[in-house]
Amino acid sequence: MSGVVRPRVVALSGGVGGARFVRGLAAVVPDDELAVVVNTGDDFTWWGLTICPDLDTVMYTLSGLGHEARGWGLAEETFHALAMVERLGGPAWFQLGDRDLATHLMRTQALAAGDSLTAVTARLCHALGVGPRIVPMTDQPRRTMIDTVDDRTLLLQEWLVRERARPAVAGVRFEGTDQPADAALSCLHEAELVLIGPSNPYVSVDPILTLAGVREAVAGKLVVAVSPIVGGRAVKGPLAEMITQLSGAAPSAAAVRAHYGELLAGFVVHDGDQADSDPGLEAVPVLTTDIVMPDRAASERVARAVLDFCARL
Amino acid sequence: MSGVVRPRVVALSGGVGGARFVRGLAAVVPDDELAVVVNTGDDFTWWGLTICPDLDTVMYTLSGLGHEARGWGLAEETFHALAMVERLGGPAWFQLGDRDLATHLMRTQALAAGDSLTAVTARLCHALGVGPRIVPMTDQPRRTMIDTVDDRTLLLQEWLVRERARPAVAGVRFEGTDQPADAALSCLHEAELVLIGPSNPYVSVDPILTLAGVREAVAGKLVVAVSPIVGGRAVKGPLAEMITQLSGAAPSAAAVRAHYGELLAGFVVHDGDQADSDPGLEAVPVLTTDIVMPDRAASERVARAVLDFCARL
Repeated sequence: MSGVVRPRVVALSGGVGGARFVRGLAAVVPDDELAVVVNTGDDFTWWGLTICPDLDTVMYTLSGLGHEARGWGLAEETFHALAMVERLGGPAWFQLGDRDLATHLMRTQALAAGDSLTAVTARLCHALGVGPRIVPMTDQPRRTMIDTVDDRTLLLQEWLVRERARPAVAGVRFEGTDQPADAALSCLHEAELVLIGPSNPYVSVDPILTLAGVREAVAGKLVVAVSPIVGGRAVKGPLAEMITQLSGAAPSAAAVRAHYGELLAGFVVHDGDQADSDPGLEAVPVLTTDIVMPDRAASERVARAVLDFCARL
Repeated sequence: MSGVVRPRVVALSGGVGGARFVRGLAAVVPDDELAVVVNTGDDFTWWGLTICPDLDTVMYTLSGLGHEARGWGLAEETFHALAMVERLGGPAWFQLGDRDLATHLMRTQALAAGDSLTAVTARLCHALGVGPRIVPMTDQPRRTMIDTVDDRTLLLQEWLVRERARPAVAGVRFEGTDQPADAALSCLHEAELVLIGPSNPYVSVDPILTLAGVREAVAGKLVVAVSPIVGGRAVKGPLAEMITQLSGAAPSAAAVRAHYGELLAGFVVHDGDQADSDPGLEAVPVLTTDIVMPDRAASERVARAVLDFCARL
C-alpha cells in the first residue's frame, strides 16, 4: 500500500448491493482511477478468525469468483469444515465455506504478524486479480452495535445472521476507533467524485461517514448516492424495517435521501421510486433508472448511467 | 479432564504406527482401563493454527473417521481451502483438508481462550466418540528439532514433510518445556502396563520419555515395546535411515531394542526380524508375530498377542 493514491472516483460500499455497483464501476473506470472504501463495522471474530464480510464480498464480486445468485461467498463453494465444526460441537450459525476459509486464515495470520488490514486486503486483492484499489475504512476495530428494543446490544452479525434481523432496532452505535485508515482518508481527499453505493445507510455507510475527518474530506466534492431501496423495499437485507424503526418514516428512497441530507449533490433512485412531491427528493438532482443489478451487464449499465448523471451535475 | 485417572494400560504413541496399535488395544481393553500418552513434539503452527499431527492421527484413527490407507487425516477429505490458500499466495507444503481444518480451528480457538491442550483434546475426543483417554505428553510447547548434517536446524514437520526427510540427520533435540502434562504423568503413575507403540523411537517416543519424571514414573512397571521395524525397513516414515545416521547400526529391530535399553521388560518384533544371535534381543523376552496392521482386524490381533505376551512376563 505504498505509493501515491490518486483515484478520481471513490465509492463507499457495504456488502452485496455496494459490491454489485462497484463491479459496474470497475468495468467503466480505469483501475488506477477507482478506489473503494469498504465498511468494516460488520467485522467480527469467528472460529478464532478475523472475518470482514463486506471487504470479502467486494473482493470476491470484483474478482469474478463470487457466488452470483447469493451475493456473498465464493461460487462452487463447499461447507465440509462447517459440518465438521458442528460435529465437534462448535458454533455454526455463521457459515464459512471451505475456500472462503483460506481468505480468513491468510488474513488472520497476517494481522497477527503485524500487517495492517489495508496491506492484507491489498495483497489478497492482488492475488485474486482485483484491479481497483479496495481499502478498509479503518485498520483498527470499529464495531457496529445494534441496540434492540428488548434492551440487548448485539454485534451486527449476531443481529443480522444469528437472530435473522428479527429483534426491532432501537439504535445503531459504533464502538472502537474513530480513526480512518490512512489509505482510506487519502483516497477520499484525492477523489473528484464520491459515490455512495446502494448499501444500508445506517450500518454500511454511516460507519464510514462518521470516522474522524471523512465528512471534511468529502466536503465540497461531488457526492452522489445510489438508493438501496426499490419500490419501498430493500433489494437485500433488513433496511426497510430499519428505516421505519430508526426514522419513523415509511421505507422509501426519499427517507434514505433525507438521511444523507446536505452531503449529497445528486441521488439515483429506481424507476418509479421518485416521489416528485417529496420535499426530500426535490432538494437535490435525481436520476431515475433501473438500479437492480442481478448480473454484470446490469451493474455496468447502472454505473454508466450514474457516471453520465454525475458528469452533468 | 477432572476426576481420577486410573488406567491399567497406558500406551505411548506417535502417529500412524502407534495409532494403529492403539486402535487394536481399544478393541480389547475397556475404555476406562486404557490411556494413550501422545507425542506433541511434532506440533507446529500452520496458517496461524496449532497443528498436533500425532494427537489428531490417534484421535481420527480411534474414532473410525481416519483415512485408512493414508494413515493420517480424515477419510473422504477434500482440499478446497488448500487450493484457495495457494491461489492467495500462501504456503502449501503442509496439506490440511477441509474437514481436518475444523479440528485445528476449534483447538486453536480454545487454546487462545486459555484451555489446556489436555482439556481441548478430551473435548474433541468426546465429540468424536473416542472412548479411551487420549492425553498429550505436555500442555506446553516442546519441539522436536532436527539438526542436519548440512548444519541446518529444522522443525520436525519442516524436515519430514517440506524436505521429505532427505537431509541426513546429525542429531535430534527437544526445545521448550520438559514438564509433562499432569494427566499424562498421573496416567503413567497409575499404569500397570506401559506399551510403547511401533513409533519412531527418536522423534515420537523419546520426546515423551525425556520429559521430567516420566522414566521415574514407569520405573519398575512392565514396559513392553512393539518394534517399528519390519524386515529392516520402517513400516512408515524415515526411521530406517535415522537409525543408521544416529546410531551407526544397520536398521533393525535389535537397534530399536538397544535404543530403549534397560527400560524394556519385553519386546515385540515382526516375524523373521528376531536375530537370535543378536545380544540386544537376547537380553529381553521377545515375542515374534506379524506386526503389520493395515486394518482393524490386524490391529486387534496384534494387540491381543501383545497383551497375552505381557501377561506371561
